[in-house]
Amino acid sequence: MNLTLLIEPAEAHATASANPTNWTSTFREVSLEEPALRVGELSTQRGDGIFETIGFVNGHAQEVEPHLDRLLRSAELSDLDEPNRDQWRAAIAWASERLPSTGEYGIRIVLSRGVEAGPAPTAWLVAQPAPNHSAIRANGMRVVTLDRGYSRDVGGTAPWLLLGAKTLSYAVNMAAIREAKRRGASDALFVSSDGYVLEGPTSSLVAKFGNSIVSPRPGSGILHGTTQMSLFEFVAEVGYATDYVDMTLDQLREADAMWLVSSVRLAVPITHLDDVEVPIDSELNAKLNEYLLSPRN
Amino acid sequence: MNLTLLIEPAEAHATASANPTNWTSTFREVSLEEPALRVGELSTQRGDGIFETIGFVNGHAQEVEPHLDRLLRSAELSDLDEPNRDQWRAAIAWASERLPSTGEYGIRIVLSRGVEAGPAPTAWLVAQPAPNHSAIRANGMRVVTLDRGYSRDVGGTAPWLLLGAKTLSYAVNMAAIREAKRRGASDALFVSSDGYVLEGPTSSLVAKFGNSIVSPRPGSGILHGTTQMSLFEFVAEVGYATDYVDMTLDQLREADAMWLVSSVRLAVPITHLDDVEVPIDSELNAKLNEYLLSPRN
Repeated sequence: MNLTLLIEPAEAHATASANPTNWTSTFREVSLEEPALRVGELSTQRGDGIFETIGFVNGHAQEVEPHLDRLLRSAELSDLDEPNRDQWRAAIAWASERLPSTGEYGIRIVLSRGVEAGPAPTAWLVAQPAPNHSAIRANGMRVVTLDRGYSRDVGGTAPWLLLGAKTLSYAVNMAAIREAKRRGASDALFVSSDGYVLEGPTSSLVAKFGNSIVSPRPGSGILHGTTQMSLFEFVAEVGYATDYVDMTLDQLREADAMWLVSSVRLAVPITHLDDVEVPIDSELNAKLNEYLLSPRN
Repeated sequence: MNLTLLIEPAEAHATASANPTNWTSTFREVSLEEPALRVGELSTQRGDGIFETIGFVNGHAQEVEPHLDRLLRSAELSDLDEPNRDQWRAAIAWASERLPSTGEYGIRIVLSRGVEAGPAPTAWLVAQPAPNHSAIRANGMRVVTLDRGYSRDVGGTAPWLLLGAKTLSYAVNMAAIREAKRRGASDALFVSSDGYVLEGPTSSLVAKFGNSIVSPRPGSGILHGTTQMSLFEFVAEVGYATDYVDMTLDQLREADAMWLVSSVRLAVPITHLDDVEVPIDSELNAKLNEYLLSPRN
């Protein structure tokens, strides 16, 4: 089952003059197969817009507010008008009511700068079944490290690099995943030009060292992962210490276990990092994915 | 006058089985205002595709073959199927026949990876009137330097950064232009993290030192500019030496004159670099733009 919703552009940002009591009046359902966007769209011409992908598990949209928080932060970094949080909530609720109450889905929300020289952004939501990730969650995957080209902290001094924003300009992320597959792995882990581990192209890195669960410091060069944040809350509750750290590749290699975590694929243990075997903590891995599959806000 | 053409996806790459004698049978004219693309488009979701912008001056499409050469190179770097050069030529000819025979236009050609998990790419062409650039060509513009974050040669060791490909993931380029405007300038010049001048977000840098016209070495970190290549041919004919060089910002500051050159705006002299005045060579500037406005292949 797919759902696609176009959202009336005039209402897609917070300063919209009319805030209808019935948000669905600003929605228009379209088919995934139907032409819906104009070729003048800056999303298609320039990758100029922002997005979030929200997991939807057994009838529940996961972590909606943290995703909307990040959407607003991405908009600010990208000089887009403030997204209309109420309207996005209503759109996600609209999809939630219509999606099956069992199974896993991904809900993607997109806010584009709109057509060139246009007066308003373009906004839409697409909900699609998630691939079956149960095997990769249990068995893990091979990961290769790839140079991200940027130094660890360049985003702080060069905000136009948009390193903290989740923009539609994902060609490099997609190319990195293709490179990983060419090398016989399933995914990549980006490393900064000064040797620090950063994140996956579409995921966050989490590593276990003894009783500590750590993730690279979500500074300027890393997108702060909603799944990683949620996971930190859980592991803290069950007794782990959590921390954000600057971690070199050599330091990461000492970890007792490591994962790439993301909203739809959830926690996937890394079995090999650049062909070097990495231990799997099967017990903790099962707990993490059980938690991530439970309803989360 | 705007023209928009969608190109049948099955024919958009070189390995298409059917090569019709009449290419226009693979074209479908649409309106810029009309929904034409699906939201599952990877161009909109991921900035995943490539493009070229071709100048069209007084009835002549400029530098078509160099643009198609670069489109094919971008496709190779991006792991896209080889674009169908004959079909693109026919599409550009189709637009050329229909555009007015006087005035300046931009013809943008786009090749997207297509819809997610789709069998074929999506391709389209948009022709639109160019803004009137005569004043900025004559009077020049202020430019600020911005850190590109990458070292000069990282593209060579990290091809997944797609630094030599003209992809649709242009959010950073657009953000750099916005940052330049915030600083009171019209455009930006990217500088590598190791201090070398690179290119503008949508243009190439050309500088004059005595009897030499130089441009940064089009290595891995720079898109080789079609306008810059054409301009080098012209200035060589009129007696200048031409060279590609590695040039630091301090070295550039010693230039007798400098320009940002691109397909539609053509040669624009830089009047100030980071608030420091730069000399304008008005005579050479006029010759360059006269040449760039003449029919070029």
